Amino acid sequence: MRFFSDNAASVHPAVLDALAAANKVDTAYDGDALSAALDARFSTLFETDVTALWVATGTAANSLALAAMCPPYRGVVCHHDAHIQNDEAGAPEFYSGGGKLLLAGGPGAKLTTDTLTTRLDAIANDVHRTQAAAISITNASEYGCVYTAAEVAAIGAVAKARGLRLHMDGARFANAVVHSGDTPANLTWRAGIEALSFGFVKNGGLSAEALILFDQSLAEEIRIRRKRAGHLNSKGRYLAAQIHALLDDDNWLANARAANAGAATLAVAADTRLLHPVEANEVFLTMAPAEAAHLRAQGFDFYDWADNEVRFVVSWDQPRNEIDALASALIAL
Amino acid sequence: MRFFSDNAASVHPAVLDALAAANKVDTAYDGDALSAALDARFSTLFETDVTALWVATGTAANSLALAAMCPPYRGVVCHHDAHIQNDEAGAPEFYSGGGKLLLAGGPGAKLTTDTLTTRLDAIANDVHRTQAAAISITNASEYGCVYTAAEVAAIGAVAKARGLRLHMDGARFANAVVHSGDTPANLTWRAGIEALSFGFVKNGGLSAEALILFDQSLAEEIRIRRKRAGHLNSKGRYLAAQIHALLDDDNWLANARAANAGAATLAVAADTRLLHPVEANEVFLTMAPAEAAHLRAQGFDFYDWADNEVRFVVSWDQPRNEIDALASALIAL
Amino acid sequence: MRFFSDNAASVHPAVLDALAAANKVDTAYDGDALSAALDARFSTLFETDVTALWVATGTAANSLALAAMCPPYRGVVCHHDAHIQNDEAGAPEFYSGGGKLLLAGGPGAKLTTDTLTTRLDAIANDVHRTQAAAISITNASEYGCVYTAAEVAAIGAVAKARGLRLHMDGARFANAVVHSGDTPANLTWRAGIEALSFGFVKNGGLSAEALILFDQSLAEEIRIRRKRAGHLNSKGRYLAAQIHALLDDDNWLANARAANAGAATLAVAADTRLLHPVEANEVFLTMAPAEAAHLRAQGFDFYDWADNEVRFVVSWDQPRNEIDALASALIAL
Amino acid sequence: MRFFSDNAASVHPAVLDALAAANKVDTAYDGDALSAALDARFSTLFETDVTALWVATGTAANSLALAAMCPPYRGVVCHHDAHIQNDEAGAPEFYSGGGKLLLAGGPGAKLTTDTLTTRLDAIANDVHRTQAAAISITNASEYGCVYTAAEVAAIGAVAKARGLRLHMDGARFANAVVHSGDTPANLTWRAGIEALSFGFVKNGGLSAEALILFDQSLAEEIRIRRKRAGHLNSKGRYLAAQIHALLDDDNWLANARAANAGAATLAVAADTRLLHPVEANEVFLTMAPAEAAHLRAQGFDFYDWADNEVRFVVSWDQPRNEIDALASALIAL
Repeated sequence: MRFFSDNAASVHPAVLDALAAANKVDTAYDGDALSAALDARFSTLFETDVTALWVATGTAANSLALAAMCPPYRGVVCHHDAHIQNDEAGAPEFYSGGGKLLLAGGPGAKLTTDTLTTRLDAIANDVHRTQAAAISITNASEYGCVYTAAEVAAIGAVAKARGLRLHMDGARFANAVVHSGDTPANLTWRAGIEALSFGFVKNGGLSAEALILFDQSLAEEIRIRRKRAGHLNSKGRYLAAQIHALLDDDNWLANARAANAGAATLAVAADTRLLHPVEANEVFLTMAPAEAAHLRAQGFDFYDWADNEVRFVVSWDQPRNEIDALASALIAL
Repeated sequence: MRFFSDNAASVHPAVLDALAAANKVDTAYDGDALSAALDARFSTLFETDVTALWVATGTAANSLALAAMCPPYRGVVCHHDAHIQNDEAGAPEFYSGGGKLLLAGGPGAKLTTDTLTTRLDAIANDVHRTQAAAISITNASEYGCVYTAAEVAAIGAVAKARGLRLHMDGARFANAVVHSGDTPANLTWRAGIEALSFGFVKNGGLSAEALILFDQSLAEEIRIRRKRAGHLNSKGRYLAAQIHALLDDDNWLANARAANAGAATLAVAADTRLLHPVEANEVFLTMAPAEAAHLRAQGFDFYDWADNEVRFVVSWDQPRNEIDALASALIAL
Repeated sequence: MRFFSDNAASVHPAVLDALAAANKVDTAYDGDALSAALDARFSTLFETDVTALWVATGTAANSLALAAMCPPYRGVVCHHDAHIQNDEAGAPEFYSGGGKLLLAGGPGAKLTTDTLTTRLDAIANDVHRTQAAAISITNASEYGCVYTAAEVAAIGAVAKARGLRLHMDGARFANAVVHSGDTPANLTWRAGIEALSFGFVKNGGLSAEALILFDQSLAEEIRIRRKRAGHLNSKGRYLAAQIHALLDDDNWLANARAANAGAATLAVAADTRLLHPVEANEVFLTMAPAEAAHLRAQGFDFYDWADNEVRFVVSWDQPRNEIDALASALIAL
Repeated sequence: MRFFSDNAASVHPAVLDALAAANKVDTAYDGDALSAALDARFSTLFETDVTALWVATGTAANSLALAAMCPPYRGVVCHHDAHIQNDEAGAPEFYSGGGKLLLAGGPGAKLTTDTLTTRLDAIANDVHRTQAAAISITNASEYGCVYTAAEVAAIGAVAKARGLRLHMDGARFANAVVHSGDTPANLTWRAGIEALSFGFVKNGGLSAEALILFDQSLAEEIRIRRKRAGHLNSKGRYLAAQIHALLDDDNWLANARAANAGAATLAVAADTRLLHPVEANEVFLTMAPAEAAHLRAQGFDFYDWADNEVRFVVSWDQPRNEIDALASALIAL
């Protein structure tokens, strides 16, 4: 029973159907109708005009956005537990041409206005120190915590006051939307977000994420950078098709709802062990090595996060009986 | 009738079937069985041990290979009509961190040992000039011409004599293999090629190319660079599945054979107009604007290459009747 | 007798005197009075407000300017014989983060509006081709030819019409000014130049060039890039002092005049051999290897430029008797 | 009375004399006799064969060494208070093409084997995390503390055991040598250092630092990178001359001894305020704003390091009466 990562999940049937439906001769790159329709589709979803670009991975989406927001000689403030800092092999530095990540803290891998302003204030304003150009936050965060719209807006106000760009890594944006009960618009551009990496792969997709540009002036540069990075697929219609399929019938919300619900079940079962509030589909627990071994002996697969800390991720397609079995096993520990 | 680009072609049914067959929970990134099986599969095909990595695009494959072969402060010799020079938005420069493309000539977009050595000899050996680190050739070339194994080996001998790395851009490698009648091994590592961008997308794939490393010592670095470039898909098994499907039943050869045959038909029909020998699936013709307009009025779509020059590309799935219709129309011009 | 390069020349005595005069405790980096005075000094010289930054080398000046003018994903049009293309080891690519040099021709290593527009027109306007962001010309050129103010202005008009930045590599700007008889202002910003690498080292300096920013909005970024490139000397006052010393008493003009006059003497002596008009301090001649050997046997040191082509450079401090001796020897060939 | 920075100090008279003595026509770049003599000179000093290259700044020396030691996709472990992390505007990231600084702690801005190994052990060995390629330590450190030869060797043993390169930022290496009483060899290559940025500018130089390569295999690459970075001065003999002048008569040791002695005097005077041991020429003190203002009112200039923390730097040419006056003022606080 695989609770290791939502990257291991299967692809939603609607996505495979959409690939088959898209399978005819059509214009190359992103000149096809499916790709062209993304702008309108996401503009409706976000209640404002946006540019929407498909890319294959969240790392590509994040790095393209940050490279357009941060020149090589400036930096991006992010949490010290951010995916862009720890899990992308230096992609932001590569794409930006040597930009620097400027690290700050905050509970649950979420920046607060306090940790953010403290970090920014520590940078003397001269040519010797790397000045910030942008801020990146992750929603849901790397610890499965969700920024409310108000929390994002507070970060957005700091960004605006200091002339900084604001990016959201939404690898699990769907999970954040579901948990918050708020609108995509309120969680993003209305709160100051200028670009969103909107994840679909963890949530039932195959190989397509959407980079949503609320600041559409970024689009021209990012289109070029996408090509230059080898991310302008020549048969882009098959990426666009995946995204449409997940937006259809609100599949993206249903998938995230299922995953969040599973995690909530686990959280109740293991409430005394919780390292962070469970607000999305990830559950971080304190657990002794012997306990972890005991669970593994029962067929549960999961990630050793740190000493005496483990992570369980519930996927969109996780069978209910697996969740219940794990909940029982956690209670029984 | 679309002769604009093989990028516009459809996906081979076996590829879609393979995606469906791969659709179950499995290990993320490239830890799955399908990805793991690529090394053995290509090792058999190439009659030697290779490392095979999937990536989404030919630009990514080329750039990853070249970045590992050429440090930022050196250069890659290529043809002045090479795809890496003209059609990748500076991807080699991006991936290599500022490496330089050192341009040489040759008929049919193919380097010759003469053009190559002349270019290399022109570089004074001091720290002021960018010294070459690698050579990149395209087979089939950008003008649809095919290097024979002997021609590749001659380039390979120059590379070896001068301590230079040798890369092959094989966006249309299948077409070259079919035309040459030679083995993949003879056209590559036996002739000195150390890394091959083995194209599948133009030849029936959806979003997977293979980067074949005959020099397996390059693999560790390229794996990291792939991640860093956002090209380590989290559900990599769906990329591996595509490649397996095209290798199955020699689909890749059948597809290339069909495309080459179509181009050969056009070449016969327009033999007085040929700008280059037709050895793969591309046909470059001299054509007056009025003639081109006349063809377009008959429903043929193709590319204006230059003044009075047009390009037709025959795709793997091009209907025979479209080819015949175009051949007739060319004759009738 | 050294006619190899003006880089081999000595340092003007006024420069050494200025270093000694500057030798006291003062503010670090460029916070000192000498550095601060450069803006005003060059603003007077150029009859407009400029920002003037010292750097150690022409390569640094060129690369800093171009990096600020050209994003990593665009290109700089320059002559295929330009110093930035051939003699800076890829510095523009390094500083710009992988920007591309887009090469054009023209006699005497000078771009013309024709060669420039032909090159620009050849770039299809899509994301696959590297679009131009800037133009760089060298005055005096790499072949010792001088752009008139009108010629610069014609280039400037093209740049303006196409929204491109315009940089001048003035490693031998003094020689160009002297030859043209025109004002520094007319040769630069009045003709559309936005940044000038104003060379002093070849013309009597020790280790200080001036980067003149007519577009002062570039200054903030370039100041940061200068630091980041390790070119913000901690004792910058000693660089500023050199520049002041060469501007004092019009030493820079006197030095260039001397060098140009020497080259003119050689040009008269070898007029049947001239490869390019002699308008600055460089003389390119056709010369058989035996003739070159004969000259070397007489003690003349010079550069083998290409097969049957040699280069003589007259330095600011070249003794008159050496020039006369070489002139006689050339006549006697 | 300037205790702000040793960068504000004057140039040693022997350096100016050496510039005058070097002032004749000679080979350009580093082809001259003075530059060529550096290898032998430093080989004698370090009791082993080294390659010694002049560069203008410590930032350039550090970045060139680190770029050769760390590929773009790896990282350099350094102290979180290291100059390369905080005071070089991202130069290591720029030169390395996006390499990452991996930060660790330790008292006095010195890494310990404990902090180093803890940091290294925290990096999971996969392609998602940036793996270390090198370690950089600063001697004397940014807080004026000195690594003993044994401490360096302990770091060196970790580096060797893990296959990591080892660099020393010796902006104040002279001060470290003087304090340690040990030999340059023992403090560097015998302890595992492979490249040393040997500072001269803070210690009486004008614009020349030496990059000492104990691993001479790094030299070829670094020579190219130096040119590419615009740091190959065309009149390099004037940089070499500065270094020779400071090595002559052990001027470098005398200068450092004077500066260290001055700092020691201040340390005694303010011993209850010391934030770090005073082992070189820097003195970090706790000091209330009112106290700092009181000192400034007496004519002392110094740096506000942090809240209630100030830094005094004693320069090689600091007049004894200024030191005594400051000592008295500190006692009187």
